[in-house]
Amino acid sequence: MVSGDAETFYRKRSLHSRLQAIYLVRCDARSIEERARAIAVEQSVEMPVAAIADDRVRSHIVGRVEGISERKAGLFEIRISLAAETVGRDPGQLINMLFGNTSLHEDVELADVALPNDLIEYFGGPRQGVHELRRRVGARARALTSSPLKPQGLAPADLARLAEDFAQAGIDYIKDDHGLAEQAYSPLAARLEAVAAALRKLEQKNGQAARYVPSLSGDLDTMRSQIAAAKEAGLDTVMIAPMIAGLSNFHRLVRENPTVAFIAHPTMAGAARISPPLLLGKLFRMLGADAVIFPNYGGRFGYSPDTCRALAHAALDRREGLRPTVPVPAGGMTTDRVREMLDFYGADVMLLIGGALLEARENLRAATSAFVAEVHRYAYG
Amino acid sequence: MVSGDAETFYRKRSLHSRLQAIYLVRCDARSIEERARAIAVEQSVEMPVAAIADDRVRSHIVGRVEGISERKAGLFEIRISLAAETVGRDPGQLINMLFGNTSLHEDVELADVALPNDLIEYFGGPRQGVHELRRRVGARARALTSSPLKPQGLAPADLARLAEDFAQAGIDYIKDDHGLAEQAYSPLAARLEAVAAALRKLEQKNGQAARYVPSLSGDLDTMRSQIAAAKEAGLDTVMIAPMIAGLSNFHRLVRENPTVAFIAHPTMAGAARISPPLLLGKLFRMLGADAVIFPNYGGRFGYSPDTCRALAHAALDRREGLRPTVPVPAGGMTTDRVREMLDFYGADVMLLIGGALLEARENLRAATSAFVAEVHRYAYG
Repeated sequence: MVSGDAETFYRKRSLHSRLQAIYLVRCDARSIEERARAIAVEQSVEMPVAAIADDRVRSHIVGRVEGISERKAGLFEIRISLAAETVGRDPGQLINMLFGNTSLHEDVELADVALPNDLIEYFGGPRQGVHELRRRVGARARALTSSPLKPQGLAPADLARLAEDFAQAGIDYIKDDHGLAEQAYSPLAARLEAVAAALRKLEQKNGQAARYVPSLSGDLDTMRSQIAAAKEAGLDTVMIAPMIAGLSNFHRLVRENPTVAFIAHPTMAGAARISPPLLLGKLFRMLGADAVIFPNYGGRFGYSPDTCRALAHAALDRREGLRPTVPVPAGGMTTDRVREMLDFYGADVMLLIGGALLEARENLRAATSAFVAEVHRYAYG
Repeated sequence: MVSGDAETFYRKRSLHSRLQAIYLVRCDARSIEERARAIAVEQSVEMPVAAIADDRVRSHIVGRVEGISERKAGLFEIRISLAAETVGRDPGQLINMLFGNTSLHEDVELADVALPNDLIEYFGGPRQGVHELRRRVGARARALTSSPLKPQGLAPADLARLAEDFAQAGIDYIKDDHGLAEQAYSPLAARLEAVAAALRKLEQKNGQAARYVPSLSGDLDTMRSQIAAAKEAGLDTVMIAPMIAGLSNFHRLVRENPTVAFIAHPTMAGAARISPPLLLGKLFRMLGADAVIFPNYGGRFGYSPDTCRALAHAALDRREGLRPTVPVPAGGMTTDRVREMLDFYGADVMLLIGGALLEARENLRAATSAFVAEVHRYAYG
């Protein structure tokens, strides 16, 4: 390939296909213009622009500062456009170009991104989305319910008994705690055998379908074989931590498994100084998350109601032709907050309660039934 | 598998194999004990301890607060031990257990970790390390030199010409800019063909071996085929961004390619509120990075000299039986800082200068020769 090929490439493709990235920068007013230019350069050519001899690179590839506005004293919103060609179609390269080196600056946050339509279409969003997650558990219009298998350290048979209790009480999605992986005391294969069998027996008995959602871990190959084992056990839903798996690997699994529903977990995602509505709502959805767990306001974590509302909106809104992703507010929720959460989020939500139910110990099933009843009552009167 | 199996497992394994994690927490003195306990629980069982019926889980799996000390007013160092069993041998699960959900708390930083020896041995550290990186380019005792191919947007032939200039000037390792991926204007296969051919021709002519270091991108399978193509082109060194690839996938590639040297790039690593010496120095090394690029003090990024010194120390120190990882301070370095950097880091270092050389434009080769000469002069007088 010689220089001419690159030239042809630039001519053939729309020259104007650009990503728009919005950053929040803590900075004094005198320095913000220089700072904005520096970020535009860092996230594109990463070298002094004056030293770039190539006209095409200078005019198309160098990031452009499209706007600067002061949000409040010392906090600026800057909009930078980046050539879509620099990203190609790789989710890892997308995050690399959006925030890679700039993530090393503690005073910058990636606040939002607008992507070209063809890239959004290529990523494709959730393969199932809220409607299919509802259909699978026979919940026509109500909010979905979920509970976690924990604590880690229990043997598969103990986790299976817990799953039985949750299922008997009417929980829709019974998920692994995100700490469950391939530990020697409870490897995934043994969990699949014990939990899936217990739930199958229950389903045969009372016709009720509770979904077991095992957690994926390890490298891409390990996750592939975990999904294969889950399918083998009759399952169709898995949980994944995209920031640990790597965004490219997450998306690869989504593409390879079009009938599987993926519930995204936020572990290691909060540290990234990327706005939660963008990362957990918009980006995880775009890459195929059918549901996304996040720390609800008023729980163990510090997200505000505004952040949670924006995150749910990004997961659900209809703008981009993607299926809606189910928001799963979690992190220390309790049954007495069910009505408030449903008032806040509406019915397109999955409520996840764990610790508060487990605290009931020998009354776990009754406590879980009360949680389920509260959700059903809200929907059906 | 039934409960009894887990019991046997606990009996058979050392019950005392624990990870020690150190966190820095901004917090008032009245709340720090409760806060420390909450982190210990979050990073282990993630549920109210009182609700755990299983004795083994309560005594072995629940994280333990091992110490709390005040570093300065409102900043506490807490030490928490976690059962090694919860991690198994998966690097992704390691970071999940060390910092996963706690990463969602903005006032907590993961400062350091001590791992059990068998886990360190299993991960195995660099397969090449500083001695082999030196040997490959015939640098007996001096610091190594490196320059990047950039800007992205150039065609492979242009990048090859740039590589030729760097090689003629005596640079040891010529690396892709971390923005180079599988872009249509310069996919990796075309870069390998153009750059590797140019360097081979030079090597035949003047016997000097410059190493081309292509950058990996995409999912695990894509990276595998990129490494295969690089080997095919006669290369033995690649660059990878572990925080984008996912730690488990990074380590998988290291295991699968014992003769390849891996240079780790910090993109998306700085945002993680994990101390840079720990993440870039200790953890990347443990997982197999032969060299690690990081933002040097006094450049475009905000790392302090202390942070850089600690990072280099973590990459190089002899304590854990691992090969040393070459520190690569970068991010806006210039030739007039070579002496100062070598005074600071010593000879076990790779100096990476890019933009400052490219700014010389038509005098690029002379500027690069001056950089190389400065490094050689320091070592050999």
